[in-house]
Amino acid sequence: MKINYGLAGLGTIAKTHLLGLRNLPLLNVPVDFSINLKALYSTHPMENVETAKSCGFAEIVDTMEKLVSLEDLDVVDICTPNFLHCQQTLLAAQAGKHIYCEKPLANNSEQTKLMVEEVQKSNVVNQVAFVMRFNPAVASAHAAIKQGVIGRPYAFRGELLHSSYLMPEKAMTWRLQKNKSGGGALADLGIHLIDLVRFLLGEIHSVSCLTDTIVKQRKNSEGIFQQVDVDDWASLSLQVQGDVKGTIEASRLAVGNDANRMWIYGDKGSLFIDLDHNPYSPIFYDEKGQRIYPDSRFLANDPFYKRIVKLYPNSKLSQGFMVDTHLTSLLWFLSSVADGKILDHTPTFEEGHRAQLVLEAAYQSSSQNGSFVAVNPNQP
Amino acid sequence: MKINYGLAGLGTIAKTHLLGLRNLPLLNVPVDFSINLKALYSTHPMENVETAKSCGFAEIVDTMEKLVSLEDLDVVDICTPNFLHCQQTLLAAQAGKHIYCEKPLANNSEQTKLMVEEVQKSNVVNQVAFVMRFNPAVASAHAAIKQGVIGRPYAFRGELLHSSYLMPEKAMTWRLQKNKSGGGALADLGIHLIDLVRFLLGEIHSVSCLTDTIVKQRKNSEGIFQQVDVDDWASLSLQVQGDVKGTIEASRLAVGNDANRMWIYGDKGSLFIDLDHNPYSPIFYDEKGQRIYPDSRFLANDPFYKRIVKLYPNSKLSQGFMVDTHLTSLLWFLSSVADGKILDHTPTFEEGHRAQLVLEAAYQSSSQNGSFVAVNPNQP
Amino acid sequence: MKINYGLAGLGTIAKTHLLGLRNLPLLNVPVDFSINLKALYSTHPMENVETAKSCGFAEIVDTMEKLVSLEDLDVVDICTPNFLHCQQTLLAAQAGKHIYCEKPLANNSEQTKLMVEEVQKSNVVNQVAFVMRFNPAVASAHAAIKQGVIGRPYAFRGELLHSSYLMPEKAMTWRLQKNKSGGGALADLGIHLIDLVRFLLGEIHSVSCLTDTIVKQRKNSEGIFQQVDVDDWASLSLQVQGDVKGTIEASRLAVGNDANRMWIYGDKGSLFIDLDHNPYSPIFYDEKGQRIYPDSRFLANDPFYKRIVKLYPNSKLSQGFMVDTHLTSLLWFLSSVADGKILDHTPTFEEGHRAQLVLEAAYQSSSQNGSFVAVNPNQP
Amino acid sequence: MKINYGLAGLGTIAKTHLLGLRNLPLLNVPVDFSINLKALYSTHPMENVETAKSCGFAEIVDTMEKLVSLEDLDVVDICTPNFLHCQQTLLAAQAGKHIYCEKPLANNSEQTKLMVEEVQKSNVVNQVAFVMRFNPAVASAHAAIKQGVIGRPYAFRGELLHSSYLMPEKAMTWRLQKNKSGGGALADLGIHLIDLVRFLLGEIHSVSCLTDTIVKQRKNSEGIFQQVDVDDWASLSLQVQGDVKGTIEASRLAVGNDANRMWIYGDKGSLFIDLDHNPYSPIFYDEKGQRIYPDSRFLANDPFYKRIVKLYPNSKLSQGFMVDTHLTSLLWFLSSVADGKILDHTPTFEEGHRAQLVLEAAYQSSSQNGSFVAVNPNQP
Repeated sequence: MKINYGLAGLGTIAKTHLLGLRNLPLLNVPVDFSINLKALYSTHPMENVETAKSCGFAEIVDTMEKLVSLEDLDVVDICTPNFLHCQQTLLAAQAGKHIYCEKPLANNSEQTKLMVEEVQKSNVVNQVAFVMRFNPAVASAHAAIKQGVIGRPYAFRGELLHSSYLMPEKAMTWRLQKNKSGGGALADLGIHLIDLVRFLLGEIHSVSCLTDTIVKQRKNSEGIFQQVDVDDWASLSLQVQGDVKGTIEASRLAVGNDANRMWIYGDKGSLFIDLDHNPYSPIFYDEKGQRIYPDSRFLANDPFYKRIVKLYPNSKLSQGFMVDTHLTSLLWFLSSVADGKILDHTPTFEEGHRAQLVLEAAYQSSSQNGSFVAVNPNQP
Repeated sequence: MKINYGLAGLGTIAKTHLLGLRNLPLLNVPVDFSINLKALYSTHPMENVETAKSCGFAEIVDTMEKLVSLEDLDVVDICTPNFLHCQQTLLAAQAGKHIYCEKPLANNSEQTKLMVEEVQKSNVVNQVAFVMRFNPAVASAHAAIKQGVIGRPYAFRGELLHSSYLMPEKAMTWRLQKNKSGGGALADLGIHLIDLVRFLLGEIHSVSCLTDTIVKQRKNSEGIFQQVDVDDWASLSLQVQGDVKGTIEASRLAVGNDANRMWIYGDKGSLFIDLDHNPYSPIFYDEKGQRIYPDSRFLANDPFYKRIVKLYPNSKLSQGFMVDTHLTSLLWFLSSVADGKILDHTPTFEEGHRAQLVLEAAYQSSSQNGSFVAVNPNQP
Repeated sequence: MKINYGLAGLGTIAKTHLLGLRNLPLLNVPVDFSINLKALYSTHPMENVETAKSCGFAEIVDTMEKLVSLEDLDVVDICTPNFLHCQQTLLAAQAGKHIYCEKPLANNSEQTKLMVEEVQKSNVVNQVAFVMRFNPAVASAHAAIKQGVIGRPYAFRGELLHSSYLMPEKAMTWRLQKNKSGGGALADLGIHLIDLVRFLLGEIHSVSCLTDTIVKQRKNSEGIFQQVDVDDWASLSLQVQGDVKGTIEASRLAVGNDANRMWIYGDKGSLFIDLDHNPYSPIFYDEKGQRIYPDSRFLANDPFYKRIVKLYPNSKLSQGFMVDTHLTSLLWFLSSVADGKILDHTPTFEEGHRAQLVLEAAYQSSSQNGSFVAVNPNQP
Repeated sequence: MKINYGLAGLGTIAKTHLLGLRNLPLLNVPVDFSINLKALYSTHPMENVETAKSCGFAEIVDTMEKLVSLEDLDVVDICTPNFLHCQQTLLAAQAGKHIYCEKPLANNSEQTKLMVEEVQKSNVVNQVAFVMRFNPAVASAHAAIKQGVIGRPYAFRGELLHSSYLMPEKAMTWRLQKNKSGGGALADLGIHLIDLVRFLLGEIHSVSCLTDTIVKQRKNSEGIFQQVDVDDWASLSLQVQGDVKGTIEASRLAVGNDANRMWIYGDKGSLFIDLDHNPYSPIFYDEKGQRIYPDSRFLANDPFYKRIVKLYPNSKLSQGFMVDTHLTSLLWFLSSVADGKILDHTPTFEEGHRAQLVLEAAYQSSSQNGSFVAVNPNQP
């Protein structure tokens, strides 16, 4: 099966998608579809036409409407700024296109709710780019927890820490404007941790959140200072179903401590996911603190793990954690498209919406001086 | 000046004190006093008489009353279980002895308040064993923060994680009984982090706390199961004066992740204290994430830092982090005794009381499902 | 300028080349040429035709002769087993094609000498895939050493340690047969360290070498045991011009210690290249052991460094160390082709030949119980 | 049994001995002797009399003759500069005292041979301070290798790297004068690695050695420059019985890379001893590179391991690696004294002599441009 692929946007994350997708023929990944780069939607078509052509896109269009109206286009991959996700999704869904959308799903839960309703109504395959799920380390943790390798999980600590924004010279971007991004470090980075907690441990019941904005204004491209109105640091306490508790921290200012990791503690052992250093496996410890190695054949009883290890590029043909993980996430989505039904454990837009509800509860908590706020999945 | 020293208790922590104190003559530490091991109070004098003698104690007594009634005894070092600290302090203070007391200062803030009142009334030198202050890494962080090396601190993360209690075979001890210990991982380990936050960053205004008890019963020395009624895991969110926010975590179950560390983030850089690996200095980072090395001569403008680096044993004569740090804390106390006044930055019983108020606010928060509880320094 | 590219072989390393080359349009790398995938030579054309087509190759051929006879083909990238490099080079050079050849350059120095003579006679651009040179960490070390950042280098230690061959189940391959590979761990991995020493420190004068073969036979694809007649572990002492001395170690059996690193010690400081963990920069230390950060603008006085940091993909668009580094090496070669002359610091076939002379001196030493053997650049 | 102990010297290493010995009563170590600090020999008795007294020494003497003539003195612990070891040993042995001597045993093998002959003639217990043997990590490696945990060892890499001497301000000391020290980094640090190789892997047959002296002169205490005539860096290739090969490196200049570690590779796995970070256990890996944990009860079939884990201070009462390890080595010696016979695996003066023969072969190799030199245990 050949899937005709349309891409919206050609920023860094769109390129990351392409770096993997374009090399699919080389990776010996067992999928029963091929990808045809059908069309690129760019707001700067003149500037990008050469790149689009070199990459193999058959055409380039200058509106989303034109993209989704392409007859034989099967899927749309939305890599535009967050505030555009909702309207673009509505357009694509109404045109019957399957949709892959970068995270966070949208600017707020009204938007995400609309999006969920629309993709369900249009009956299109939909997936949000909660890509952290799609590497063997997380898949292995997922399987191992279910199989009791560390006993009952009771606590966790997650950190997604970047650091480049502490330099005041760093320029203003849409990511630092609430109306365009929906939030700061928490919405951009923390959303991954929120999804991991939900995926690995269960539904989040309530959240306490503290945030801060340290660099309060930055120069835009014209050299004029503009206000930053999003968080660049956030710390959350989470209460999760099954009496699991823990904290997550997201930062864009953590100089010296860049990290993408999560500790999960259980009553029979613990596990440590350190994606910056090992996307292939968590480290598991038993009650005595000795390392244990769950048998991968045993883990493979878990269908999610089993499929991920097949899809994830072999380490000898790795294109690095970011490309490999984004690619696997995209291949998961395309597998759903090829199969004609959404695979189990897909982070659908519904999942994106639920994560958004946690995010909003967190921001509400932050505005209430950190008091715990219940996450109501029936909201808004 | 010769200081006649009395020790209450001969458990592990008392021995740790002695390992350092007895070797003072070898360490070339510039103090103007010597220490005379005058008397040991032990509830098992017959069992311990030989050790006491070999260590150089002039006598061994079997009640605290006898210890404090020794005429020429100058100081009492209280290394008994927590629930005994208060009454022993009252006895010692009323006898006019200077008092060094292991942490936490007592079982609850009523006791710690009594103790503060008594030592102030009796006008004796008093210090609680918040020993983490007393190593060059923490002293350097203290000086560097005041001197603006990392700019204004705005966030932190502290971890004091042990792991040996996850094994269910581990026996019952007084540490696991609330009425004897005053609390679990948080009271025993977290109290150090509470003190570090207060010492390095400022007064804690409010606290949200989640705790858990995983191993709920253990066999006592007679093989009978007893209930554990203290936390073996605790996670706190803290709001600190000057708009500083952060989390600390204390655990006795963190298999694979034993740690004694603190990250502090400022608007010009960050610092990382990792006491298990380097008690001599934090690691400092600038805005770009590059390591910087504050000049120790510059840091030495800070009187606390200056004195600590003199008192702390030279690395060539180190007895390890625990002994070195406890010894320096004790030498600090004895310097106050020798000087006839309490040195600045001493963790006095007042400091122990204030940390206890944070601890109690935390436990109150934990019982209120994690809601933030204000720490009222005028309580109880 | 469009460069018509021909590839010989489609094994893992050929795919690694393609993973980078095919994504060139996305990487914003400032080169003044584009790459046209003209033809693939494969001994299994039927099996690979689909992949070749999907990758964008215009044609697939089944002999090297056919490849090099393609009129408008500009360059040939040789990714075949080592024992084929020589004859394929001769064919390509005689056809006037520019040649990029995987390492080691050939099976022995008679072959490498022939190859050097032929490319010089044919006046084609030639480069051997000593790719370790082509990352910012090594380029930075190269510039910093020349600029005296660590003073005069006097000693080094290099390690290229793999581990997967300790498992006896691992199958027989041409890499384990001397007549096809020219050597084992030393020829395959150690050759990179030999090149790094030569590139960073200077010509190697003499070498002492010890080797061992631990797994002495393996099953081939038909399940029949065959002898392994190459080293899977090698340790070398090297004496380098300018009175620099050090050791390198190459292994395929170093379970628990996979590494790709080099320490260089100078009389004013040291530097540590750890390519598995940071291909962007070495770590530099001064006389006191404190980290220093040479100013990249200062380093950029070094033309090699300056060009490498331009060619090397931005970390946001990284495809991982292997792909990024191979790609940069290939872009270096193609830049020479586009410029019409070989760039300075290119690892030409002459460099490949000189490294081969060191390799052979090492194997000779190993056969003489480790005695030092002089490396004669006028040999063979 | 009470052992009357005499100490020669009161430098840093002597103090390290005392830091442990004086605290023996607190450590719950199961020995059937006590230690009486009988006498200290110091060349500066006036300066040290106060310290000696405070430490509990009954007397202080100003010549070695006086020390060894003390009637009831049982043992002499020699902590003086290397060039004095021989004559002091002869005096002590002739007086019938048991002797513990710091490493290296003496300045050259003529001296060490004399010392061996004398202690054998006098029939006194004798041990050289090859203290690295005396920690659980090395003892565990020793037992595990014998029990086949990593299969047959075939290769190793040892590093003992210090760094403080790169600063030119560092003053001249006897350690930098060949006639007083017998050698530089190799004699002072490398000797430990030589002993570990011999202890863990077997007799060294031949050695190739390269050395260098980087800081060639230093100011003495009067501010006058003096020549350094010893190595501050040394790298050795060793060929060991049973076809084991490897390298060791000793340095006083390795800024950024202080280390005390050894990798040992076997045909079924590997082990890594990292004494700076874990003196309690090596890390063991199996064929697949996964960590394995030999059962300590199984290891305890090894009598050396069994005794070491009993003697080595409990981690809760640790005085740090240096003190704990020196203490255990001393307790081993004193156990031999108490038992009236030298325990198996003791590094006797004979062992010290054999290590000295390796050292001299290494220096001979260094003077012969690194050619392999056979180690002849019948020399000199």
